[in-house]
Amino acid sequence: VGELALIEAIRQALSAPGERVVRSTGDDAAVVRSRPFAVTSIDTVADGVHFDLATHSPADVGHKALATALSDLAAMGAEPGEAYVALALPPDLGDGDVLELVRALADLAGETGTTVAGGDVVSAPGLVVTVSVTGWADSEDRLVGRDGTRIGDVVGVTGELGGAAAGLALLGGLETDLGDEVKDSLLTRHRRPTARLAAGRALAAAGATAMIDLSDGLATDARHLARASGLALEIDAGTLPMADGVAEVAAAAGRNELELTAAGGDDYELLFTIPADCWAAAEATAGVSLTRLGRALEGTGVQFPGADAVDLDAVRGYEHL
Amino acid sequence: VGELALIEAIRQALSAPGERVVRSTGDDAAVVRSRPFAVTSIDTVADGVHFDLATHSPADVGHKALATALSDLAAMGAEPGEAYVALALPPDLGDGDVLELVRALADLAGETGTTVAGGDVVSAPGLVVTVSVTGWADSEDRLVGRDGTRIGDVVGVTGELGGAAAGLALLGGLETDLGDEVKDSLLTRHRRPTARLAAGRALAAAGATAMIDLSDGLATDARHLARASGLALEIDAGTLPMADGVAEVAAAAGRNELELTAAGGDDYELLFTIPADCWAAAEATAGVSLTRLGRALEGTGVQFPGADAVDLDAVRGYEHL
Repeated sequence: VGELALIEAIRQALSAPGERVVRSTGDDAAVVRSRPFAVTSIDTVADGVHFDLATHSPADVGHKALATALSDLAAMGAEPGEAYVALALPPDLGDGDVLELVRALADLAGETGTTVAGGDVVSAPGLVVTVSVTGWADSEDRLVGRDGTRIGDVVGVTGELGGAAAGLALLGGLETDLGDEVKDSLLTRHRRPTARLAAGRALAAAGATAMIDLSDGLATDARHLARASGLALEIDAGTLPMADGVAEVAAAAGRNELELTAAGGDDYELLFTIPADCWAAAEATAGVSLTRLGRALEGTGVQFPGADAVDLDAVRGYEHL
Repeated sequence: VGELALIEAIRQALSAPGERVVRSTGDDAAVVRSRPFAVTSIDTVADGVHFDLATHSPADVGHKALATALSDLAAMGAEPGEAYVALALPPDLGDGDVLELVRALADLAGETGTTVAGGDVVSAPGLVVTVSVTGWADSEDRLVGRDGTRIGDVVGVTGELGGAAAGLALLGGLETDLGDEVKDSLLTRHRRPTARLAAGRALAAAGATAMIDLSDGLATDARHLARASGLALEIDAGTLPMADGVAEVAAAAGRNELELTAAGGDDYELLFTIPADCWAAAEATAGVSLTRLGRALEGTGVQFPGADAVDLDAVRGYEHL
């Protein structure tokens, strides 16, 4: 298939645009009827860095590229709107693979109410997928930055941690006694991350004062939040909600399980702070388990009582502006 | 410099955000106070495809990445707002080069009233720069798609054609008798394209019925416009406004000059259609020379009377969704 035929096939793989989308693919730019606040993030995944085509299907890549971008909207409490997708394609990636990638991305777009409203396709030495997502909010109050934590706030996290890092270890060939079901859930956790969109909106509505998605690992991302808010976070290492199978993977790898739960990246759970008296409302509406990890204090940085023997300072090789 | 230090240096190279920007870099996503219509395009440039680091400086790359994205906003008649920049960096590109790239991009952002409001930095085998730009409009009427041409409309173009293709030929080592000044203007035309933002808004206000920016070359882009509008365009090859030096470059290369003016890409001029009685208003406000090329007719495709001997069907190796 030629480049133009591929683009036509990609267009056909996309769902119908949302009702606020006045123009989408096929013009110089998309046109969207706005809501009062536009919330936008751009995210890139590259072969050999964020995924590996040897262990990730093209569909995994398409899913991950959109999910990681949407996760940033989740962390703001925004409602997803449109995605713009740039594909830099290596010569050895077949058109069938590209369509598989796009279809998985389009499936996730459909599930999350996101319109893929534009894109670009170019050649490059390695596969690089960039997704810019725009979400919307009707009021600034409903959006949560990283900088609003107040002293005394409870620190919480959605879901479970360490699963993506454990899945990555399994992809690397680590042998364990885990059953297939647990193993698959860890692999899926790594290959097909979930953006906590509904939880993010619920936490924002419940009164979360600051929020960040866990892409680089709890230890690193908690530091970002503490710095932006100008105070310290105390996180009790014993409270971290560990995904099933993480302890076994850590043992098989000869690593401390805290390395996977507190320093492993790619879980895409939401770390948030919230006044203690809002916790019950948050729990009732988040639609996912919430765990109290600690509290916000005067000071700087992140303290991890109970994790003194572990080096949580390994910063991942990429970072968001 | 480490990755985090590089990102901090990039942040410092950016100008202060525009007044509608509530949050920019440093959070999970940027937050922008909207105007009624958001106009968004994503564009990628890759080493070896859209530029070559052997003949383009990092500053050229940064300028071109933003200019080509802004050119899509120009073609809609939108006012530029925010840019989101994803850099996929090869290991051999030094931090100084990356900063040079970002500074040139930031300079163009400043000149055009664009806020760089977010970004991402990752590693990749080759340099790939993706820019998503959002512009704004207060009314749908002030935006111009590709699909509004009416039979009898005049076909027009801004500025001059063929300069970028001639510049590319010079970069390839072609020997000519051209003086330095003309040569430099052709090289600049290729390396530092201009997005016709003010002209695009003026043409939209003057009544342009359809518009497209010339990235793939007049012949190809005119076909896109004709197809979207469901009619034919007749373009008199003799009217094409050729940039100074293009004829000499074509002669030195043993090519017909129409190949450079009508099929050469990267000029980033605006091709538009407009009712004949709006032409004078367009000319008075565009701020750049306008040339009448022909008119819109019943039918399909593009007719080029006067260009019968030239093959204008060479489609470029990349295309926009």
